[in-house]
Amino acid sequence: MMSKEDNELLTRTGPGTPMGGLVRRFWVPVLLSRELPEPDCAPKRVTVMGEDLLAFRDTEGRVGLVEPVCPHRGANLYYGRNEQCGLRCVFHGWKFDVSGQCVDMPTATAGSAYKQRIRIKAYPTREWGDCVWAYMGDEAEPPELPSMAFALVPPSHRYVSKKWQDCNWLQCLEGAVDTAHFSFLHMILGTEEMDEKQAIERLRHAALGAQAVRNDRFRWVRDDPAPAFSVDEMESGLVIGAARRADEEDLYWRITHYLLPNHALAPSAFPGENYHGQTFVPVSDTSCWIYTYTWNPERPLTEEEVAMARGGHTVHAEVDEHYVPLRNIRNDYLIDREEQKHRSFTGIRGVSEQDAAIQDSQGGIVDRTREHLGATDIGIVRLRKLLLQQVRDSIAGRAPRALAHPQAYATHSGGWVAHRSKPLSEVMVERFGDPQGNVGAAYGLDADAVQTQKET
Amino acid sequence: MMSKEDNELLTRTGPGTPMGGLVRRFWVPVLLSRELPEPDCAPKRVTVMGEDLLAFRDTEGRVGLVEPVCPHRGANLYYGRNEQCGLRCVFHGWKFDVSGQCVDMPTATAGSAYKQRIRIKAYPTREWGDCVWAYMGDEAEPPELPSMAFALVPPSHRYVSKKWQDCNWLQCLEGAVDTAHFSFLHMILGTEEMDEKQAIERLRHAALGAQAVRNDRFRWVRDDPAPAFSVDEMESGLVIGAARRADEEDLYWRITHYLLPNHALAPSAFPGENYHGQTFVPVSDTSCWIYTYTWNPERPLTEEEVAMARGGHTVHAEVDEHYVPLRNIRNDYLIDREEQKHRSFTGIRGVSEQDAAIQDSQGGIVDRTREHLGATDIGIVRLRKLLLQQVRDSIAGRAPRALAHPQAYATHSGGWVAHRSKPLSEVMVERFGDPQGNVGAAYGLDADAVQTQKET
Amino acid sequence: MMSKEDNELLTRTGPGTPMGGLVRRFWVPVLLSRELPEPDCAPKRVTVMGEDLLAFRDTEGRVGLVEPVCPHRGANLYYGRNEQCGLRCVFHGWKFDVSGQCVDMPTATAGSAYKQRIRIKAYPTREWGDCVWAYMGDEAEPPELPSMAFALVPPSHRYVSKKWQDCNWLQCLEGAVDTAHFSFLHMILGTEEMDEKQAIERLRHAALGAQAVRNDRFRWVRDDPAPAFSVDEMESGLVIGAARRADEEDLYWRITHYLLPNHALAPSAFPGENYHGQTFVPVSDTSCWIYTYTWNPERPLTEEEVAMARGGHTVHAEVDEHYVPLRNIRNDYLIDREEQKHRSFTGIRGVSEQDAAIQDSQGGIVDRTREHLGATDIGIVRLRKLLLQQVRDSIAGRAPRALAHPQAYATHSGGWVAHRSKPLSEVMVERFGDPQGNVGAAYGLDADAVQTQKET
Repeated sequence: MMSKEDNELLTRTGPGTPMGGLVRRFWVPVLLSRELPEPDCAPKRVTVMGEDLLAFRDTEGRVGLVEPVCPHRGANLYYGRNEQCGLRCVFHGWKFDVSGQCVDMPTATAGSAYKQRIRIKAYPTREWGDCVWAYMGDEAEPPELPSMAFALVPPSHRYVSKKWQDCNWLQCLEGAVDTAHFSFLHMILGTEEMDEKQAIERLRHAALGAQAVRNDRFRWVRDDPAPAFSVDEMESGLVIGAARRADEEDLYWRITHYLLPNHALAPSAFPGENYHGQTFVPVSDTSCWIYTYTWNPERPLTEEEVAMARGGHTVHAEVDEHYVPLRNIRNDYLIDREEQKHRSFTGIRGVSEQDAAIQDSQGGIVDRTREHLGATDIGIVRLRKLLLQQVRDSIAGRAPRALAHPQAYATHSGGWVAHRSKPLSEVMVERFGDPQGNVGAAYGLDADAVQTQKET
Repeated sequence: MMSKEDNELLTRTGPGTPMGGLVRRFWVPVLLSRELPEPDCAPKRVTVMGEDLLAFRDTEGRVGLVEPVCPHRGANLYYGRNEQCGLRCVFHGWKFDVSGQCVDMPTATAGSAYKQRIRIKAYPTREWGDCVWAYMGDEAEPPELPSMAFALVPPSHRYVSKKWQDCNWLQCLEGAVDTAHFSFLHMILGTEEMDEKQAIERLRHAALGAQAVRNDRFRWVRDDPAPAFSVDEMESGLVIGAARRADEEDLYWRITHYLLPNHALAPSAFPGENYHGQTFVPVSDTSCWIYTYTWNPERPLTEEEVAMARGGHTVHAEVDEHYVPLRNIRNDYLIDREEQKHRSFTGIRGVSEQDAAIQDSQGGIVDRTREHLGATDIGIVRLRKLLLQQVRDSIAGRAPRALAHPQAYATHSGGWVAHRSKPLSEVMVERFGDPQGNVGAAYGLDADAVQTQKET
Repeated sequence: MMSKEDNELLTRTGPGTPMGGLVRRFWVPVLLSRELPEPDCAPKRVTVMGEDLLAFRDTEGRVGLVEPVCPHRGANLYYGRNEQCGLRCVFHGWKFDVSGQCVDMPTATAGSAYKQRIRIKAYPTREWGDCVWAYMGDEAEPPELPSMAFALVPPSHRYVSKKWQDCNWLQCLEGAVDTAHFSFLHMILGTEEMDEKQAIERLRHAALGAQAVRNDRFRWVRDDPAPAFSVDEMESGLVIGAARRADEEDLYWRITHYLLPNHALAPSAFPGENYHGQTFVPVSDTSCWIYTYTWNPERPLTEEEVAMARGGHTVHAEVDEHYVPLRNIRNDYLIDREEQKHRSFTGIRGVSEQDAAIQDSQGGIVDRTREHLGATDIGIVRLRKLLLQQVRDSIAGRAPRALAHPQAYATHSGGWVAHRSKPLSEVMVERFGDPQGNVGAAYGLDADAVQTQKET
């Protein structure tokens, strides 16, 4: 049972909040790079943790992320003209570069040095893994970017999307590390009456993947709704394993990573399959953007895989041109009650949409004081505990340990089958060659050389 | 002149309010039975007096009315799967029956008794008069259902509809017992230039009924805008008579019933004509559902009568598939100013819509501290006085007397012409055979045998 | 730098506010006369400075402006029937004339004098310059109407429009007297590559007028973004001149008037050209109506000029049937970023829409505590200073001096070219024959004879 105070502490990220302070110590994605497709293109409004900002790509391709209020008379720079390495206010022509510096002030006397004293708030940005990341913290020197695996592979090996969600970021994150819910939320009905080919077709677009039929994963997930959880701590977060009864003396493990403060990696991939992960970026306290990435460390994604992701299959959502899911809280996710009776547990199409439906349905901010948690919620409990401790450390002025270990973000998570006698750490070594799933070495990283990051 | 405090006391019905407490001592309709058309159909969201609830019909046809929050992780049960005598949360599969009891908990250890300690809030329901009624009070044992006449006749003898209204429930109820307004709000213009056949056609769809022309009621209502009110109290509420000058020494009486706490019967029916009534169920403090019933104790309604009611004629509104009137506050009731100049007093089509327009127009909650009441408002004044006294009794812990007299709800109200020397009680005996219009005996009721109620 | 308190003081006009008190001492336009096109037409809802009111034109053509709440039971008189010199509530038939007096009360005993004691709040109105003006102040006797030039010419010589704006009235007014912004906000690009004919065509619909090309005004405005301001005070407000470098030793003057409390005249007209002006009427604190007038003192407007104004060219906006601009804050003014790159500074079509975009973009109420004002903001600074002083006088019970000088509103403003040695007052005499631009004499006014005003 969580206290009201802790629930507030964990969920609110606006300026001045403790959790907002913690998240602002890390780099956070604020846009897909392709939302600013070319130099001097139209600026984009973004709201991050309650701050209304404006992003623009200048003539040199650099991305600025600024408070969009002209300090002259308060006009909004969104209507500004993006020209010659700066955004110019259309009211009286004051112009600002990506660092927020006023670089032209036509209303001032010729030769006046006044403009040099005028700045707008601007946050450092980096482009990394097809996203624009920003550092919104108070430290003069931002930390290193996290060496997340999806960002380390060549662009052809990954696909990154984003989607709008109508609830607090934390309940989305909790949903991502809670693998117990696969036995219901994403379950498909009626497969027992199908032949293997039909079942594969049915599962082709689902979270478990078409191979789930052939390799029995589907059956194991369906038949054991109470997986046993094991959680290991690491520099960058948590390894969360959930083991279900498989055949004979084996367990089917589904393992996720929680990466501080707002990332989670998905539990499905067997060797050779694509990896998936998500980053949860608060917009307000009751809405967030979810960045979703699919990658394969060994080969480019196929055209079909990219088309599937773009079309809103597997873990990606089907979105409109503003990245709002077509099936959302305003249309009850187009729930189909006949479908729910006969073909899928929710009647809602899409794994991403099923997640969104149930997470939004918990309310803008779920009331964690009324929960009744059990053994299958251990992953979530540990995630909250770690986050609370990090927030308290942050309040006390201690920098999160994870900031000093960007290479500890280079992890893989996924599935494995192992004898029931093996603990999580051994399963991790079997599956990933490392007790925490760290694959930095495979990506050519070592602790002293993580500077593959392209700076803008 | 009402005090601000009394106005608040009378109008607010959310959890914890005194009036909310009073209304919750009675059964209230929360859905039309046909909104849950079959076993295991889709659940329906309902908000009653500020409480967000979920109604579902289980495999056995029973109706559950529950708080839709899964006690496990707070997911909303609206997205739940209605299966095998219970609603199952799609997040992790916890399942609840119509009584709110958790009947399955797949995440728990096999054999665990924990689920027996888990319940969600659920209110008792009954189906009665084509409606689902709920008892939302605190008493362990709900009272008997009110023996309202429309619910006592065979289903073929009645038609029940509902409509959304954008204002506080009480001003709708006041409109229903205020028969003075017929001289304006529902008035039709230009009949003097018509022959009888034309006038009948014009009035065919109006509140007074086609026969109003032939029997002069229309003329009497038009010509006397200041009826004299008489009010008698009875166990279940009030008999409210309004007498207008008719021809020679006669008075034309239009008599309504107010039935505690939120019902009103209409004043038009002469012997042999259909009866009408309404029940006002708060959604929020500034919106309500109005259940409207038309019935004939002697014969089935004709196909034409049912078609008229369905189409939004007589006292029923023309509504969309969500029971929202097509002519509503968001489109100014499609008021037609030319129509208002030449054919009807409001320019708004439909008696129900005319009522809605003027009641909504008073504001979300009408400010009763600024009123200027007169002799034609006596019915309303008495209704408020009775309600205030009941609320105060309720605060003091005294159960409303009406609860002990469910058979006192079996009443008819309507119209009559009588010599001006006769008081209301004599007129009631002439018209209905009982000074309070009680027709329980005609329906086979007596004080000891009112158990015709079908329980679900 | 303005204090938060002064910003509040200047911007808020609801009932009981100091600025609301000041503005209410003056006549304010509340409707276009053509919004009430004929006797007994449909009433119109209007909200003025936070007061929800109802305007109606009675059988005699008089305009009533009343609080729309029937004192009987609080029904809204909007649904009332406009008949025989009064608006009749459709609930129970109480009827009110344009003065707010109850003139019929059908529910009262015949012959009762009660109705004589019942009034609804009503404000005096006048029709003047194609607008309905209201006096919403506390004084028993309203002041004289301001002798604004647009209202003094014959109707054929003027065109008056109105448009909705989504921000506080004061930032619109400030935009109107801030002529420095013409060098950016309304600037047209690429004219250097055009021949004169093409450039004239391009400028034909713009604020500077087609002749701006031929007479070099366009070039002067573009090339000097830092005009020098001079401000003179007069009985009715301010003369605000902004001088840009013209050719050789000349200055190009653009001169506006600020007329207390909420009018501004435009700076473009050279002799013979049409004059323009605007009046800013708060609806709420974050929205207003802008009345815009174009007039020619010497001749009727041509059909083409009227068509241009109606179509939303020159200083008028392109609006829908509710006077809401087609290009507005809800659709980002249909900003076209390609247009912004190559043809106009904003990419927004229409001078009026460009103004609206930048003024709305400052926020509902611009935060004047964060501004960085300079020499080109002197006009705005003086306007604020005058307004603040008038508000403080008003709080102290002193009537604004302007009220005693209605003829001081008969002014012309516009443009002129003069040698750089001449001060504003001399430029005014050269251009308008009067140091303050007062043209009352030309309109046949003198201090003792300003009663050309048609009263309704």
